[in-house]
Amino acid sequence: MIMRRPIIAILTDFGTSDHYVASMKGVVLGVCPDATVVDISHDVAPHDVLAGALLIESCWRDFPPGTVVLGVVDPGVGSSRRALAAEGGGLRFVGPDNGLFSLVWRDTPDLRVVEVADCRRARADSGRTFEGRDRFAPAAARLANGVALETLGPPVEQTIRLSLPTARIGRLRMDGEIIAIDRFGNLVTNLGGDQIGRWAGTAGVRVSLGRRRIGEVVGTYADVAPGAACAIIGSTGRLEIAVREGNAERLLRVRRGGRVAVERVGRRRTQGR
Amino acid sequence: MIMRRPIIAILTDFGTSDHYVASMKGVVLGVCPDATVVDISHDVAPHDVLAGALLIESCWRDFPPGTVVLGVVDPGVGSSRRALAAEGGGLRFVGPDNGLFSLVWRDTPDLRVVEVADCRRARADSGRTFEGRDRFAPAAARLANGVALETLGPPVEQTIRLSLPTARIGRLRMDGEIIAIDRFGNLVTNLGGDQIGRWAGTAGVRVSLGRRRIGEVVGTYADVAPGAACAIIGSTGRLEIAVREGNAERLLRVRRGGRVAVERVGRRRTQGR
Amino acid sequence: MIMRRPIIAILTDFGTSDHYVASMKGVVLGVCPDATVVDISHDVAPHDVLAGALLIESCWRDFPPGTVVLGVVDPGVGSSRRALAAEGGGLRFVGPDNGLFSLVWRDTPDLRVVEVADCRRARADSGRTFEGRDRFAPAAARLANGVALETLGPPVEQTIRLSLPTARIGRLRMDGEIIAIDRFGNLVTNLGGDQIGRWAGTAGVRVSLGRRRIGEVVGTYADVAPGAACAIIGSTGRLEIAVREGNAERLLRVRRGGRVAVERVGRRRTQGR
Repeated sequence: MIMRRPIIAILTDFGTSDHYVASMKGVVLGVCPDATVVDISHDVAPHDVLAGALLIESCWRDFPPGTVVLGVVDPGVGSSRRALAAEGGGLRFVGPDNGLFSLVWRDTPDLRVVEVADCRRARADSGRTFEGRDRFAPAAARLANGVALETLGPPVEQTIRLSLPTARIGRLRMDGEIIAIDRFGNLVTNLGGDQIGRWAGTAGVRVSLGRRRIGEVVGTYADVAPGAACAIIGSTGRLEIAVREGNAERLLRVRRGGRVAVERVGRRRTQGR
Repeated sequence: MIMRRPIIAILTDFGTSDHYVASMKGVVLGVCPDATVVDISHDVAPHDVLAGALLIESCWRDFPPGTVVLGVVDPGVGSSRRALAAEGGGLRFVGPDNGLFSLVWRDTPDLRVVEVADCRRARADSGRTFEGRDRFAPAAARLANGVALETLGPPVEQTIRLSLPTARIGRLRMDGEIIAIDRFGNLVTNLGGDQIGRWAGTAGVRVSLGRRRIGEVVGTYADVAPGAACAIIGSTGRLEIAVREGNAERLLRVRRGGRVAVERVGRRRTQGR
Repeated sequence: MIMRRPIIAILTDFGTSDHYVASMKGVVLGVCPDATVVDISHDVAPHDVLAGALLIESCWRDFPPGTVVLGVVDPGVGSSRRALAAEGGGLRFVGPDNGLFSLVWRDTPDLRVVEVADCRRARADSGRTFEGRDRFAPAAARLANGVALETLGPPVEQTIRLSLPTARIGRLRMDGEIIAIDRFGNLVTNLGGDQIGRWAGTAGVRVSLGRRRIGEVVGTYADVAPGAACAIIGSTGRLEIAVREGNAERLLRVRRGGRVAVERVGRRRTQGR
């Protein structure tokens, strides 16, 4: 499957102050010396599986086919939760069975999942507390080396799924919420640009955040004045509320969970979108 | 031009908690699988173009010829500001036309600049908010692949320039200021070691910070006692004020913009420097 | 010695906001274009050599043979402290002679150390403040290129050693302390799992933190309830105190230096360990 240098993209909640990520990379390179290792992020809040899942969902399509996504946000380490490896949508995935990949996997109909049975113990005297190094990293590196998925373990039918907060879709309005806030203070919602487009048809829409009116969905930040808030379809296809050259989180004083509504406002004056 | 593995060095204000940098790297590796990707920094304060420009100025000479510097600190994303690619001083540069590279480009007389006309849209449903991924990363990767600069777009004559705060050079003193403070609390000024040397000639100099005397310019931290402040020509050639094994920012309670003066103090007793 | 792509693993206290790490990587790749560069961590507290030494001790075994560990936590930069390069335990090491590698080197009987005599000056006008870039990075890259250790400089017999706080081993109890706290709030002690096993023999043990009883040493976090504290042999072989799916530092309100005791509690009911 792989002709060029294999890519392993790593997401963890390990932070970058400890040695954990380095240990995983050392193990990866010991098994697959030719790998290009890329950090997705290690700053996921400890044990926040949903935040990790959203990050993976936001970038997996940007990696070339064959990339192995190695994800370790794993509050259940050492318990009976399973270790998974999977292939689907052109990529491979290795991590715990806790929903970390479930936002991706619902969109990959060709998905095959196996349980990673094998577990390396790096040192006889070390505990079962670091499966990122001892189980997931070796499995990811073996996949990167070209090993077939099915050689890692037996097939798995059901995996844990996370669900995002559901939007309420009415006739006159869609009610969603803020599910993530990025470094720039942009407010990412659970409303998809596609979804809004299908719902609104040729009508225009107006977005509001709690009781505050934001306005129509603009095409780019530059459509509003510096310092003004706007609604925009962000880079991952979700509706976002942003402040041009500013910080919406600080200006609008909102948090994850804040309510966002989209309302129809009559037919559009111009055709198309 | 390139015989060995191409290097792409990335600077952004995206932080490392979100997926943005990973998305850019995924796109880069899709276009140029053989690239070695290096982070310059992603911790530039959001939209602080001058801080990004200073970081690039501080390290670009340390990269081997052919390196592509991909810089995205881009408050004007989505506006009509141009996307640029350039070649000069042995390196290549890709980023917005907002002065991010201007501290380097003033020193590269062989500079050629083009406008990057081409714009990849990663997903039909995503907005025009992430040109780091959709425009700059593909352009940088194509350069890394060996594509000629001029194939990316038409030549550009004028580009935006940033200017650092200007030092006032008098007969008896130079007046400068602190333009950056690093992790160790070292105070980096807009006075160059070269510039001071030419100005002072064979005379000695005495450095002060506001009303506080720091002393002569020493050759290394070890020339003063632990905990003492000193003036020193730092690793990028700028005059810095530091505290040996300590933190000048905290000890001297100063900020970016604090005034630094250099005065002549008679002829040097020893020849040379 | 090297057949595959050489690995250079870097640990510094430079942080990731400044250009320092990027400058080192640029120099490394200029000398050894084929290197895979891995970050161990750059978030060591400024000048905290012991913290850096503990990080290196925690992960060096996870890297494949031939890896060059480039460590720069160097409060004595510019002083007469020596620059070292070494080979032992299958790995190579480059950094200042201040004990940064001493927790590793005490366990590598085949160790050979030389003084790095050579010093690159990147720019004629830059000071002697950045040996990470000007001395250590080039030496590490030359080793990665396959240069023999002895060509870097003359052999060194004695090097600076750090010592960890010593545990007191009595007949009925071992008294140790917390030497590090990780991102998850896990409390890492100076008591080794091996050491405890040899001391306790077939007896059981009970761990306490100050006056608080923690309990026996469990095999995995999942052996206690979520939110409960436990004693466990961590991934580096040290006794740790952790809270399952929680943060022991915050829950137990302790700091580096906090006292940890292990007591014998009669013979184990089952044989072996």
